[in-house]
Amino acid sequence: MEKYDLIVIGSGPAGEKAAVKAAYFGHRVALIEKENLCGGAGVNTGTLPSKTLKETSLYLSGKSDKGLYGIDRNVNKEASITDFMYRKNWIVQTEAQEVYDNLKRHKVSLYFGTASFEDFHKIRISGKTETLIEGKYIIIASGSYPFHPPHIPFDHQRVHDSDTILNITRFPHSIAVMGAGVIGCEYATIFSTMGAKVYLLNRSDKILTFIDKQIVDSFFRSMRNDGIELLFNKDTLSITTPKNASDLLDIKLSTGESIQADMFLFAAGRNGNVRELKLEKLGIKVTNRETIEVNKNYQTSVPHIYAVGDVIGFPALASTSMDQGRVAVSHIYHTHDIEEIARIIPYGIYTIPEISTAGINEEEAKKEKLNYGIGIARYLDLPRGKILGANEEGKLKLIFTKEDLVIKGVHIIGNLATELIHEGVSLIQHQRTLNYVIGKVYNYPTLHDLYKYAAYDGLSLLAGHKVKP
Amino acid sequence: MEKYDLIVIGSGPAGEKAAVKAAYFGHRVALIEKENLCGGAGVNTGTLPSKTLKETSLYLSGKSDKGLYGIDRNVNKEASITDFMYRKNWIVQTEAQEVYDNLKRHKVSLYFGTASFEDFHKIRISGKTETLIEGKYIIIASGSYPFHPPHIPFDHQRVHDSDTILNITRFPHSIAVMGAGVIGCEYATIFSTMGAKVYLLNRSDKILTFIDKQIVDSFFRSMRNDGIELLFNKDTLSITTPKNASDLLDIKLSTGESIQADMFLFAAGRNGNVRELKLEKLGIKVTNRETIEVNKNYQTSVPHIYAVGDVIGFPALASTSMDQGRVAVSHIYHTHDIEEIARIIPYGIYTIPEISTAGINEEEAKKEKLNYGIGIARYLDLPRGKILGANEEGKLKLIFTKEDLVIKGVHIIGNLATELIHEGVSLIQHQRTLNYVIGKVYNYPTLHDLYKYAAYDGLSLLAGHKVKP
Repeated sequence: MEKYDLIVIGSGPAGEKAAVKAAYFGHRVALIEKENLCGGAGVNTGTLPSKTLKETSLYLSGKSDKGLYGIDRNVNKEASITDFMYRKNWIVQTEAQEVYDNLKRHKVSLYFGTASFEDFHKIRISGKTETLIEGKYIIIASGSYPFHPPHIPFDHQRVHDSDTILNITRFPHSIAVMGAGVIGCEYATIFSTMGAKVYLLNRSDKILTFIDKQIVDSFFRSMRNDGIELLFNKDTLSITTPKNASDLLDIKLSTGESIQADMFLFAAGRNGNVRELKLEKLGIKVTNRETIEVNKNYQTSVPHIYAVGDVIGFPALASTSMDQGRVAVSHIYHTHDIEEIARIIPYGIYTIPEISTAGINEEEAKKEKLNYGIGIARYLDLPRGKILGANEEGKLKLIFTKEDLVIKGVHIIGNLATELIHEGVSLIQHQRTLNYVIGKVYNYPTLHDLYKYAAYDGLSLLAGHKVKP
Repeated sequence: MEKYDLIVIGSGPAGEKAAVKAAYFGHRVALIEKENLCGGAGVNTGTLPSKTLKETSLYLSGKSDKGLYGIDRNVNKEASITDFMYRKNWIVQTEAQEVYDNLKRHKVSLYFGTASFEDFHKIRISGKTETLIEGKYIIIASGSYPFHPPHIPFDHQRVHDSDTILNITRFPHSIAVMGAGVIGCEYATIFSTMGAKVYLLNRSDKILTFIDKQIVDSFFRSMRNDGIELLFNKDTLSITTPKNASDLLDIKLSTGESIQADMFLFAAGRNGNVRELKLEKLGIKVTNRETIEVNKNYQTSVPHIYAVGDVIGFPALASTSMDQGRVAVSHIYHTHDIEEIARIIPYGIYTIPEISTAGINEEEAKKEKLNYGIGIARYLDLPRGKILGANEEGKLKLIFTKEDLVIKGVHIIGNLATELIHEGVSLIQHQRTLNYVIGKVYNYPTLHDLYKYAAYDGLSLLAGHKVKP
């Protein structure tokens, strides 16, 4: 039986980064992947595919630059589903290979098969063959799967989950998306951009609650302007699939209404991949969403067994999962290579328009009873925003404490929000003030000027009149 | 005669920001503008027009996404010169109005006419009427004009300078651009993107010398790949304009060759607008490029007279000019509002692809005899770069000192370089290390990951093997 310093279960963003980092520091590492391709949801079903489809839909529809020029570049009508999937497929293949190469380059032993705990240190790998390996430490990065409630008749032709939606072979004319979380909102805006009539359903009206409410409200307005119907406080009771493929699905809602749509996407949650692990043997408990609870070092209730990534639940983002993998390895081997663990983490949602956020939001500022002020800059107030033809709702919002003008939160909706937020992360992490921002020089014209404009707006609020020097 | 605390000459980026800031702090300010529209070169002829034309050319040509999808979106052949100028004209009008509104909002007294010094404190404004005003302090922000050497037969139909090129009424089939500085390179890549055959001429082969040479070399390769002919160490001796408008210009070079092109753009330098100021009355000397020399507070040889912006020469960028205007006002009024004057300033060049740079370059590191290392990340190595379909030459280069891994310089060529550089500015200004970058969490997928990849590349160099955890 092969013995390893570390066994990692899963080759998604969390598992890959953990395995490679431990190997880099000279440890003997095995990684177990149950799919044929490396990369997990980050590469194959979650992060990269939907982010690529977002760019594709903007390209094919010409949406981002519609009306900006004297002439329109819209190939939507000619675009086929093959065109739509073309670049996504290429990205997935290339990146899965990149992950494989990275593991090989670092001499990680790669096993393909399903992992289950034999005891506290031994893992059984079941696949074409059975293998037993032993590890001093184990990191569970087994990811998540789309939750399937029994009343939804998934057929993966017209009724999809967030994995199978990637395999559609024709465009829906209309689609009902159940669940207005990150995944549901991303697909709702992608399909709407591609010209489908979209219904976005959600059980409650508490949506994207980790994001500043003013930004979420802007996003709702933006979706409504794009023709998306928001149906909140409504659940799906049943779906009737007609015999005739050209007829619409009949979707009965909890409020008594029903809607008709060509396709249905269930995106109301993913559960952790824990069932095959046999955690019960070790006494490691899982939540009702099948996620594993961990401490701040990502240790489970068994100290030499760690869990990172989607399998521990929120935020379940590729970026944070990678970091969790790296932090777990730092904790195991006391590598001290990360000088300062990032306290302030950006959250990015790749909707159309993008949303990104860091630090506290206004609701949290109220709850903490901070004496806070806000400063807002609109994309359309900036030359760069005008050049790019920004979304009407595009804005950057700063939250700062009034007594010392220190920036506590940054919230952005609009083009390139997921890139622009990183300036905000630095400002918050290093406790910079509005005056610090005003003293900075940003290239002109850039969208980074949003920070300067928002800082002036914050000062105006305090001065009681408009300031824009 | 009206008396003011401060008189500002010119309403470009430097003058506007100076005037508004002084007014904001309660001072009585007059601003004199000789054109009918506010905004100077930043709005009307320099910064914003060419940056907008760059985006337009990318849009109309479909260049940035060519070959990325199963289908091409190229409207180049149908695009007219009106389409090309459409958005540029809109941006210029809107922004000129914005500057005017901003001055009015801050109650700056606006005079239209040509300013000249009557004595050390009095300024004569000549236009439809003559006015004399007095100022305790004076800031010269009079900008620059395109230099016209006598042997170039400017007719503003086929032979242009960097102002009149904005008024062309038809596309050139081919164009020779004299001067491979920032302006020349920007227009060379714009016209090439629009499908013109471009010849880029330069007297020497020392080009964009303030930028890291490796990045400049990447840029040269990128231009050559796009079919631009680089003709360096060649000067223009004469231009013969044919009688028949459909015949080509005959351009004789200093090396004996001649080239034929449809249009000619002379972009080899702009001189300061000083002639009408009558500075000789005050004993303020000007250089042979008609620029004014100032100290670090932007004072001329007469302490109560300051000069900022293009009229003081390099770098003559809108962003730095604004900052100079603000710093001059801080110095006059001891406002201390800028907590920390930015020591590290980004430089942005809006070529296709963009270039942006901050801190020291490799040539400077060598000259200072630093024990430095470099780390490079290519756009095409990142998922986000692959999704966007980056230019082959796209890369980010970090320069760091080996003993402490502190980052000293960041140099970027590629999509959004002018936005991405701001992360680098913070890293350099606050003396962050490679390990600090590795400990950061960037949204995934974003181009900001270039920093992380480049930091790992830098560590690989030190470790003697490839590192990419």
